[in-house]
Amino acid sequence: MLPHNMRKPTNLMLVSVLCLQLMIVLMVMMMHLEQAHAQHVRSFPFNYKAQVDQIIQTITRGSERGKVYELLAYIADTFGGRLVGSKAYDLAAQELVRNMKQDGFENIQLQPVFNVTHWERGDVEELQMLEPRFIRRMEVMALGTSPGGFIEKAEVVVLHNFEELEAINVRGKIVLFNFQWNGYGNSVIYRSRGPAEAAKKGALACLVRSVTPFSIYSAHTGVTNFDENGHKIMAATITVEDAEMIDRMVRRGQRVVLSLRLNCQNFPPITSYNIIGEIRGSTKPNEVIVVGGHFDSWDVGGTGAMDDLGGIMVFYEGIKTLLKLGMRPKRTIRLVGYSAEEFGGGKFGGMSYVEHYRDQLKDHLLGVESDGGPFKPLGFEFTGGPRGMNLINQIATGLLSSINSTKIVTGGGGADVNPLRQVAGIPTMSPYVDDQDRYFWFHHTRADTMTVLNSDDLDLLSASLTSMLYVSADMDERFPRD
Amino acid sequence: MLPHNMRKPTNLMLVSVLCLQLMIVLMVMMMHLEQAHAQHVRSFPFNYKAQVDQIIQTITRGSERGKVYELLAYIADTFGGRLVGSKAYDLAAQELVRNMKQDGFENIQLQPVFNVTHWERGDVEELQMLEPRFIRRMEVMALGTSPGGFIEKAEVVVLHNFEELEAINVRGKIVLFNFQWNGYGNSVIYRSRGPAEAAKKGALACLVRSVTPFSIYSAHTGVTNFDENGHKIMAATITVEDAEMIDRMVRRGQRVVLSLRLNCQNFPPITSYNIIGEIRGSTKPNEVIVVGGHFDSWDVGGTGAMDDLGGIMVFYEGIKTLLKLGMRPKRTIRLVGYSAEEFGGGKFGGMSYVEHYRDQLKDHLLGVESDGGPFKPLGFEFTGGPRGMNLINQIATGLLSSINSTKIVTGGGGADVNPLRQVAGIPTMSPYVDDQDRYFWFHHTRADTMTVLNSDDLDLLSASLTSMLYVSADMDERFPRD
Repeated sequence: MLPHNMRKPTNLMLVSVLCLQLMIVLMVMMMHLEQAHAQHVRSFPFNYKAQVDQIIQTITRGSERGKVYELLAYIADTFGGRLVGSKAYDLAAQELVRNMKQDGFENIQLQPVFNVTHWERGDVEELQMLEPRFIRRMEVMALGTSPGGFIEKAEVVVLHNFEELEAINVRGKIVLFNFQWNGYGNSVIYRSRGPAEAAKKGALACLVRSVTPFSIYSAHTGVTNFDENGHKIMAATITVEDAEMIDRMVRRGQRVVLSLRLNCQNFPPITSYNIIGEIRGSTKPNEVIVVGGHFDSWDVGGTGAMDDLGGIMVFYEGIKTLLKLGMRPKRTIRLVGYSAEEFGGGKFGGMSYVEHYRDQLKDHLLGVESDGGPFKPLGFEFTGGPRGMNLINQIATGLLSSINSTKIVTGGGGADVNPLRQVAGIPTMSPYVDDQDRYFWFHHTRADTMTVLNSDDLDLLSASLTSMLYVSADMDERFPRD
Repeated sequence: MLPHNMRKPTNLMLVSVLCLQLMIVLMVMMMHLEQAHAQHVRSFPFNYKAQVDQIIQTITRGSERGKVYELLAYIADTFGGRLVGSKAYDLAAQELVRNMKQDGFENIQLQPVFNVTHWERGDVEELQMLEPRFIRRMEVMALGTSPGGFIEKAEVVVLHNFEELEAINVRGKIVLFNFQWNGYGNSVIYRSRGPAEAAKKGALACLVRSVTPFSIYSAHTGVTNFDENGHKIMAATITVEDAEMIDRMVRRGQRVVLSLRLNCQNFPPITSYNIIGEIRGSTKPNEVIVVGGHFDSWDVGGTGAMDDLGGIMVFYEGIKTLLKLGMRPKRTIRLVGYSAEEFGGGKFGGMSYVEHYRDQLKDHLLGVESDGGPFKPLGFEFTGGPRGMNLINQIATGLLSSINSTKIVTGGGGADVNPLRQVAGIPTMSPYVDDQDRYFWFHHTRADTMTVLNSDDLDLLSASLTSMLYVSADMDERFPRD
């Protein structure tokens, strides 16, 4: 045992040492905490949290709430379907440009697209059943590039696939392709190639069951592709209901005789144009993220609000919001309304863009397209390298959970941005949306109108895309190709 | 302790007594089991198990599988929509009667229905928008009883309810009722009464948003009711899409001007007929269960396969199956295809039946109607007394679990059997089917065709109804009113 007087200093020393140790521990802990906190608020992608929250707030709940729907509805309602080469295409384009100017878009231009298919529907589309029962008016829509004509009466041969076309004599008959829906890709081949193949076998005309998984007596038009110098016959779509009825009649041994009249017409190719506007990058304006959809639509009464004006307007709203908030990213975000997608996929507007910017494609970082329905967003579809995939995954999961837009799936792109990837290896992206099947219920019909769309969902989609694009265009790193 | 020799007998006696007791217990148990078993196989409704199983087996998996669809499709496809008073109604009726004869139906008759509304659609139904945008062809369908006419141009006033009609001057204008769907009953009032009320206020014509919860540019016709000596104006339905678009245009301050032409026509009333056939009861033929639906349909391109030929054919198949199997119930099951339901609910065919059989209604036990879509059955809707309710509950839960048709809900009936209840207190029943909302997607449209229906579901529905009807018509007890 130590002497008593020795104890106190020892205890004091001990306490002092302990206090010192505790202080050091606390300081270290606080430093760690502060570092962690600093890392949390400042490291990528969390350093964008405040901006992204502001974008989401402004578009979904703030001053921009409902604005996508409002302008989209105004243009769609006022000008109607925008078949390429039509007056409606030009008038609606002028309105879009007028709005771009008013909203401060930069480098607005109408970029020429040469040698575009020019076809007009005309005002006569008549299909009648003469046998076994007279039906005065069956729904029928010419397919794009179909010639006009008149068949007073002809018997129908029903085919279910291309194999049957090889096996059955269709000469002098109207062919009806009544295929079973098996996803869009497996079904649309009958619309795009059925008439050309039937023509080769001597058919008088070709009717195609509408390409849809669900119908309320809904005819779906679309383009058909005849061979360059091949024989052209009238090509038109009928409803699922009529295709199935005619099929049943023929299977019962009833002879089905139809009359078909179309006055659609093919004209020499025209020069059309893509509509372009952007928010110029603050420090690296030559590095570009290109976004958009196609401005043309079908012409069958619907207004192409879903396919694809809505696809453009969700991006439009994003650029408008960034301009309004003064949130200019380091790099340029360029909006393109592509021409003539409906007549050739990316062959016209998409390829034309690529050719126009061919020497600048090395600085095109990302191609983004919305052409699968401007519905409620769930996340993003992406085609690119693993670093790019990892990056958008980080942005989505780190910043977009408040609007449930965090799912990343492979397969992003679209007809008009795929040329960017094919020609220059640029990654492509598209929104991953809810209820994708529903898109095909309205696709290319009289029902493609504002009624399909929901204002809150449009806001969410715009907020989701704009957040992703702003971060991708502003971050220190250049969006990677690998 | 007992002497040794005394022990054995005692043990033996004990064992014997125990054995005897055990035997008695076992015998009693067996008797009980046998009784229970006998009760199980013979008591109501289980005494019908074998017959019901045979009905279900025959219709859903045996020789009758697919037969409802087959005959229904043949009549629907071959004769088309059956507006009352039309040639199609007569031709299809002849075909149904021909089939009834062939299938051994008894007491086949065409029962006159007097003083039936006679209206014809004509072949011109044109609605164009002149301002703010020219639209050459908007979908439009005259409402039943609308006069024809031509309005070269008139401005549209959009109303959302009857209150607005009181507050807004509509004189010289075309009224559009763009109500919100709020269930069929709350919505159909704008179709049935909107035009009459608008006429009173001096409107030139009345357009009504289609009565449907969902649209793919689908116009839904139906009857409208003008006051007996009231002023009649053109009354027509347009699609949800167009109603919403016109509403948006007007809210934007755009003046909407339309042109409307209809050549529909009202004619003096006609005599039509209900189509009747039955399986005669074996011992109590004067006691009747009356089943069916309405034979007339709308005339807008669809074939009325869903509304309501399918409703009739599920019962038709049931009677046919009973006749074929030689399973004649004690009481009569009478099938009625009612006339002119579309023009007056039960006012024509339904009331006419009641008046014709007025002195026999005391022996009408049950009125059954299928007019809510011949879809997959879940059970039955019933309106009657607690004993009747208990009875069908016993039959359904006891015998129909193999086809999941056991749910009993209140509210059974229909426009054509309700007069039986209203006039004579007869219980009424209808099938309770899956996915009832879907019915209104196709109701009164060009899409009311076989494509809506599914052969297996039709078989199930027919099997469910036939089982219930057979037991109800054959059981010892008379189906109770209380």
